[in-house]
Amino acid sequence: MRTAFHLTSGDEDHQKTVLTIAENLSNDETIELDDIAVVAQSKGIAPLTSDGAHSDTVRELMDAGISFKACSNTLEMMDIDDADLVEGVEKVSSGASELTRLQDDGYAYLRP
Amino acid sequence: MRTAFHLTSGDEDHQKTVLTIAENLSNDETIELDDIAVVAQSKGIAPLTSDGAHSDTVRELMDAGISFKACSNTLEMMDIDDADLVEGVEKVSSGASELTRLQDDGYAYLRP
Amino acid sequence: MRTAFHLTSGDEDHQKTVLTIAENLSNDETIELDDIAVVAQSKGIAPLTSDGAHSDTVRELMDAGISFKACSNTLEMMDIDDADLVEGVEKVSSGASELTRLQDDGYAYLRP
Repeated sequence: MRTAFHLTSGDEDHQKTVLTIAENLSNDETIELDDIAVVAQSKGIAPLTSDGAHSDTVRELMDAGISFKACSNTLEMMDIDDADLVEGVEKVSSGASELTRLQDDGYAYLRP
Repeated sequence: MRTAFHLTSGDEDHQKTVLTIAENLSNDETIELDDIAVVAQSKGIAPLTSDGAHSDTVRELMDAGISFKACSNTLEMMDIDDADLVEGVEKVSSGASELTRLQDDGYAYLRP
Repeated sequence: MRTAFHLTSGDEDHQKTVLTIAENLSNDETIELDDIAVVAQSKGIAPLTSDGAHSDTVRELMDAGISFKACSNTLEMMDIDDADLVEGVEKVSSGASELTRLQDDGYAYLRP
């Protein structure tokens, strides 16, 4: 099984909750997961930027095997350069198209 | 592939974000989509009413091929008449049943 | 068809909206549903506790056949004992793993 999280909230407490839930899922030994992806867009992009709140948590979760994907529309609209992203973050054409593709490919969708 | 958006928030900024993400998806040339539907209920119904915030955006997105569906429970509870809806909005028995049907029919679900 | 609701918000009005939408779905005669489950985690756990806001609504919906599942991670983190839960609430290893399993099993996902 595979799971995709949708991170769109600009609220830092909410962002932390989403990241904690993703972390808890990766630590849950009752389920075998082939992939956990976090797709960020809109104000939810902040934790994926180098100086964003919770960027350290994003780095830790990437080390634990969780992948992070940033919406290119959002990056353009917010004038965020590649160099501003946490190393290892993947850019996708749009958050919505990526989440459509992932669900079409069998991923469960979670939007805490 | 097909995508259904769930619009429930009463926050006008949030409503605008959902509509913008739907619009960006319809403009994303990296994905071929047969349908994009926005299912609105609860306080998220406002943009689908003639004098609601962002109703002009709803009209533009309908012209671009995105369909809008209004929850009948919500319309009844909020005392919204058919004549109050943006022309072209489809009524569905309930937002939750419609989104269940759409997912059962293969639509991806997005709730930004 | 089957539907799983994700309840994570700490806002009592929002919690009430989620429960009302679940109730309306169970009363919608245009769709035949084999199961409706509400998976609660984070601050959304409150209505599933005996003295939480809307716990009476949770009891009524359980009587109407809707099942409620509480995230064990949340219970531990918030120091909530089994005895504090509304009778009949099922504990699951984590909200995210349960919602992944349910979607993998064909449930639609709704996060109002």
